[in-house]
Amino acid sequence: MRTLTLPDIEAIAIGAAILGTGGGGNPYIGRLRVQQQLKLGRRVDVVTLAELADNAAVVAVGGIGAPVVGIEKLRQGEECLRAVRALEDLLGRKMDAVIAFEMGGSNSMAPMVTAAQLGVPVVDGDGMGRAFPELDMTSFSIYGHASVPAALADDKGNVVIVKTAISEKWVERLGRTAAITMGGSAGMAIAPMSGAFAKQFAVPDTLSQAQGLGQAVLNANSLHQNPIEMICVREGGKRLFDGKIVDLQRRLEGGFARGEITLEGFGAHAGKSAEIAIQNEFLVMRVGGVVEICVPDLILVLDHDTGHAITTEVLRYGQRCAVVGLPCHPLLRSEAALKVIGPGAFGIEGVSYQPI
Amino acid sequence: MRTLTLPDIEAIAIGAAILGTGGGGNPYIGRLRVQQQLKLGRRVDVVTLAELADNAAVVAVGGIGAPVVGIEKLRQGEECLRAVRALEDLLGRKMDAVIAFEMGGSNSMAPMVTAAQLGVPVVDGDGMGRAFPELDMTSFSIYGHASVPAALADDKGNVVIVKTAISEKWVERLGRTAAITMGGSAGMAIAPMSGAFAKQFAVPDTLSQAQGLGQAVLNANSLHQNPIEMICVREGGKRLFDGKIVDLQRRLEGGFARGEITLEGFGAHAGKSAEIAIQNEFLVMRVGGVVEICVPDLILVLDHDTGHAITTEVLRYGQRCAVVGLPCHPLLRSEAALKVIGPGAFGIEGVSYQPI
Repeated sequence: MRTLTLPDIEAIAIGAAILGTGGGGNPYIGRLRVQQQLKLGRRVDVVTLAELADNAAVVAVGGIGAPVVGIEKLRQGEECLRAVRALEDLLGRKMDAVIAFEMGGSNSMAPMVTAAQLGVPVVDGDGMGRAFPELDMTSFSIYGHASVPAALADDKGNVVIVKTAISEKWVERLGRTAAITMGGSAGMAIAPMSGAFAKQFAVPDTLSQAQGLGQAVLNANSLHQNPIEMICVREGGKRLFDGKIVDLQRRLEGGFARGEITLEGFGAHAGKSAEIAIQNEFLVMRVGGVVEICVPDLILVLDHDTGHAITTEVLRYGQRCAVVGLPCHPLLRSEAALKVIGPGAFGIEGVSYQPI
Repeated sequence: MRTLTLPDIEAIAIGAAILGTGGGGNPYIGRLRVQQQLKLGRRVDVVTLAELADNAAVVAVGGIGAPVVGIEKLRQGEECLRAVRALEDLLGRKMDAVIAFEMGGSNSMAPMVTAAQLGVPVVDGDGMGRAFPELDMTSFSIYGHASVPAALADDKGNVVIVKTAISEKWVERLGRTAAITMGGSAGMAIAPMSGAFAKQFAVPDTLSQAQGLGQAVLNANSLHQNPIEMICVREGGKRLFDGKIVDLQRRLEGGFARGEITLEGFGAHAGKSAEIAIQNEFLVMRVGGVVEICVPDLILVLDHDTGHAITTEVLRYGQRCAVVGLPCHPLLRSEAALKVIGPGAFGIEGVSYQPI
């Protein structure tokens, strides 16, 4: 177990925004919220999966909603806490540790806030090793954890429980519409998994991965090195495209931010054009109409100069980007996983997943 | 306490459809469902409010959704039962009696089905003395009963609980969107009220009222008397308009059936035109642009020949109707009630409630 410092959290926020592949919500606000917990005298302790007791109750939490909503509607700050408390109340037991649904932007920060508020540690790992738009797209759901009962809490004091669901997809549907009604976003907590389950099926060490990645970006910027190259070297990434955003379609649909960006290449990619489809996260990139990378592998759209992530809600015309591809964790590449998080699951037709 | 027979149920269905003022869902299907319970060997026992123990747990149930959905999507039949069971499970106590949210169409039948399934009596009374489109429009909510925790169950096996809500309007909102996601309709049960509360704030004897009204219609038809006149005499109603539907606007919006019908007068009303606005139920009627009757008083749109109710989902061009106005129960006319169920609450501007 280790205890996080203010600089640790800054690095994690930067790295998690990158791993979030465009999604997971505003990392800046999320970071301020965790840092505020430390300033209030609370602690954020991190445990590895190996350190969890097999019978520990590990609760996965995060925000649910379209990241774009978070720009105008800030969280009140205790949504996830209230969701966890509602579950504890319902199940008659306390939670022993908190884990992230996804390592991405604000949703990598929310579990730390909740853990600090509860006085329990946060797990070094998550359910995606990145971000995905839907709740049933975690390794937890894919490998058989039932999310019900799941609790959603809003900024106002409303709490909804999905008590029984015939599938994980129905937890997502019912949770999503509750979140929309609650104002477009809510804090969510699902039925706890055992420590034994988390050890086997959580994507491991992603909080540390985010921290290392964020630190690499900070170092590159302070040492005037090339942050994109640092990220590629550190993570085994592939630099796929350098370009400027020349077209941007974004709409809020069914509680998701959907759309597409078009990049006009420069440098090594001058004269080429790339398109990236969005559903909260970046799903697939085509260069000259040919698929270069698709989910579940990670499509990082980074600021060309600083290496910081550009999350989908702050994309804008004229931004200069570097697109880097990272391989996803093997847990996300199984046949069972590809049914849920492969390109077909997002309605992307005619694309079969080819690992990067 | 009395036990209902098959003919009792037929009469109640006819009468409750009339009291439903266009809403409450298809009474035909609802009736078949209750009668099926009797054929399965179960009983529907009716208790008066006076017969309830003060500390009895009285659970209000009904369907939530737009009645028009019920035409194509029949209920599975155990939605309300599953909702009640979820509440019992959550609260750790059994329910002693069932009461209707509203005495209207299918929603007057659902509590009888649920009561038969649970093996407890149904109360002779309801929360509206008619039907209204929204859940917070019951005398229960108006006079201070908190509906949370409230449970919703669908035909597939999903159950959602609204555990905490900052107002009754939020229970309605969160329940409504869950019902929409569940396919446009769901069975719902709210936190039980005490027998003592029901005695004071339920609209009394409305099951018997529906039965008497239905029997009057059946009698008039078999004896070739005028059923419209029979209804007016029996209930102290006022015959407001005779006309043919010459225009019909109906749309499914936010989980409600909204719209408007225009009637062209005949007989005593020849040469006149009437318009009735709809939100699941009939809300206000204007004749020649002047308001004749509005919520919370009851606007009955009846088949001109048979006296049967025409519910909003089966309105069609060319129907010959008689429109009868009935005074609502005094519980619905208080200042507190008019804030929730007066014309202003439905967004009808420039109309102040004048009792019929």
